[in-house]
Amino acid sequence: MAAPIIKSKQAQKEVNGIPTEVVCTEFSNYIFVVLTQYGKIGTLISVTPDSRSNDISTPSFSTKVLLGKDEPMTHVCAKNLGMFVSQEAGSRPVLLGLALKDSSIDAVKQIKEIIKSCQIW
Amino acid sequence: MAAPIIKSKQAQKEVNGIPTEVVCTEFSNYIFVVLTQYGKIGTLISVTPDSRSNDISTPSFSTKVLLGKDEPMTHVCAKNLGMFVSQEAGSRPVLLGLALKDSSIDAVKQIKEIIKSCQIW
Repeated sequence: MAAPIIKSKQAQKEVNGIPTEVVCTEFSNYIFVVLTQYGKIGTLISVTPDSRSNDISTPSFSTKVLLGKDEPMTHVCAKNLGMFVSQEAGSRPVLLGLALKDSSIDAVKQIKEIIKSCQIW
Repeated sequence: MAAPIIKSKQAQKEVNGIPTEVVCTEFSNYIFVVLTQYGKIGTLISVTPDSRSNDISTPSFSTKVLLGKDEPMTHVCAKNLGMFVSQEAGSRPVLLGLALKDSSIDAVKQIKEIIKSCQIW
């Protein structure tokens, strides 16, 4: 059996006292990232860089809720985290599973550090 | 660091000469299964048991394409594979990523065997 083509990495850490799990899986067309404090896959959001923004300035991203509650805050949080992953991964689209109890700025900052430790791209 | 709550298993095998990857991840509310012969996450489909079918007879399942092409064959294939996973996993909803070159009856049968080897539930 050959080495798996699909790379996956997982980490668990406390964020402000809440056990937080991060699962990153790299597919050829998407980076799949689950950030969960409930064990659930949570709200599933696609975060894709807009193709029209070809200039070197900050790229724009589109967010779309595929599964779960479609709330404004979900888009804000998904755009922030998805952009972070996408920019680290060469502007690839990101599929994000979000199930956070605490999505404060401070928590998101710590979660980004966990994502960094799960870097597979 | 505690043991990860989220269990994941992965396998790679040739199905009729085509390298096939299976990734199974268990979340509390969904079993996430990717079946790919392209390395892509592919079409994303939710396969959920219908709550109204409470009798002991064959349960019915609903399929919904969340990402990718919504084609009749996708629903047929997703229902077949999703039901297989769900029934093995105590009627839990399944989130399925499908990127198959060969979705013949014979290929699907072999893919089910790979899924069995990735059983995490």
